[in-house]
Amino acid sequence: MVKLVLVRHGESTANADNEYTGWNDVDLTKRGVNQAHEAAQLLAKIDFQPTAVHTSVLIRAIKTANIICDDLNWLYLPIYKTWRLNERHYGALRGHNKDDSRQEYGKHQVALWRRSYTAVPPALPQPDHDRRYAHLDPRSVPLAESLAMASKRVMPYFQDQIAPELLNGHDQLIVAHGSTLRALLKYLEAIADDQIDGVEVDNGEPIVYEYDEHLKIINKTILTSSI
Amino acid sequence: MVKLVLVRHGESTANADNEYTGWNDVDLTKRGVNQAHEAAQLLAKIDFQPTAVHTSVLIRAIKTANIICDDLNWLYLPIYKTWRLNERHYGALRGHNKDDSRQEYGKHQVALWRRSYTAVPPALPQPDHDRRYAHLDPRSVPLAESLAMASKRVMPYFQDQIAPELLNGHDQLIVAHGSTLRALLKYLEAIADDQIDGVEVDNGEPIVYEYDEHLKIINKTILTSSI
Repeated sequence: MVKLVLVRHGESTANADNEYTGWNDVDLTKRGVNQAHEAAQLLAKIDFQPTAVHTSVLIRAIKTANIICDDLNWLYLPIYKTWRLNERHYGALRGHNKDDSRQEYGKHQVALWRRSYTAVPPALPQPDHDRRYAHLDPRSVPLAESLAMASKRVMPYFQDQIAPELLNGHDQLIVAHGSTLRALLKYLEAIADDQIDGVEVDNGEPIVYEYDEHLKIINKTILTSSI
Repeated sequence: MVKLVLVRHGESTANADNEYTGWNDVDLTKRGVNQAHEAAQLLAKIDFQPTAVHTSVLIRAIKTANIICDDLNWLYLPIYKTWRLNERHYGALRGHNKDDSRQEYGKHQVALWRRSYTAVPPALPQPDHDRRYAHLDPRSVPLAESLAMASKRVMPYFQDQIAPELLNGHDQLIVAHGSTLRALLKYLEAIADDQIDGVEVDNGEPIVYEYDEHLKIINKTILTSSI
């Protein structure tokens, strides 16, 4: 039996400020740091020995991964950082307050952008000039993403980098973002497009999948803090 | 012009306790953490934009690398962790107080083990059973190392993973250990076997090499804190 664990980063300053974040590189709040420590405590209680950690190139996820690895004496593990695990790109909405956006675009439209699988928020006028994306094929850098689009960039990473390790019997840890993890969860559990709306992933609460040797899910548990 | 920077981890608990450490996985002291922050401040003042960070699988080096990356907003960079950059393996001396070892083995013998290029300290009776070395060819896991032996495992990593990046014009950062960095420095500067004795690398003081396009050293600077 092999385990895959998904952890959403601890609370970020943008979560706390009720803003769309996406690829904005915001830090963890103090509460977010505590949530990362709590995630480590929860993981310490199960039989889970990952051979690698996978995260995004955004600091809220990287710091959460570093805290977990530090607490569990896993700092020596490879931590792979990939834009493919970045949060969904919120286009021109990012950095905007969610309430303000509802006023500007209307409640219904904003709900669609947030919750529909295929709705694409307003695009950025041009891509980010950020050193961390400079090596990418410019056509792969999004200006805005639906959840479906985010899913399309996450899947190849799971298929190429994570599934082979699980098939080799190596536990794997993914520390990523709310929408990225929803996209991944949809794929792993074969959730229908119109059913993903109700799925939430909470900060710092590890989702544990146990797989058989054919990568079939045997068990799923969400670890929650008793605090 | 491309830059290679070497940083020795901040002070460890073993440094503070005057012990042989080697592959013992000791933590940073508070002073060591401050030295890592100071190294970041010194690096912030020069034109240095690494595309990757290379470190050992020992937490004192990994934590130093993480602190530097956090302070300089480089957390998104790949941090490659390799046993090849581990500290020299001190064999049966590790964990022993340096003064006690002098009493046990004699001052001259201990000085030889510490300072001669080829003297090998007493070996461990058996290799470490440690998860982080389980994937290695057992014949490559040392029971004790001379500086020459440590050098032989460091060189292939530099040659295969770092030199090609420098030749491509990509700045690289190495965060490692006193003896590993002495071994590397000896190779980079072609220092003779009997001249390496006098070379010291201080905790958290970055050594900056500037190279031309043929990987010839143009300039070497040691950045030191004014504090």
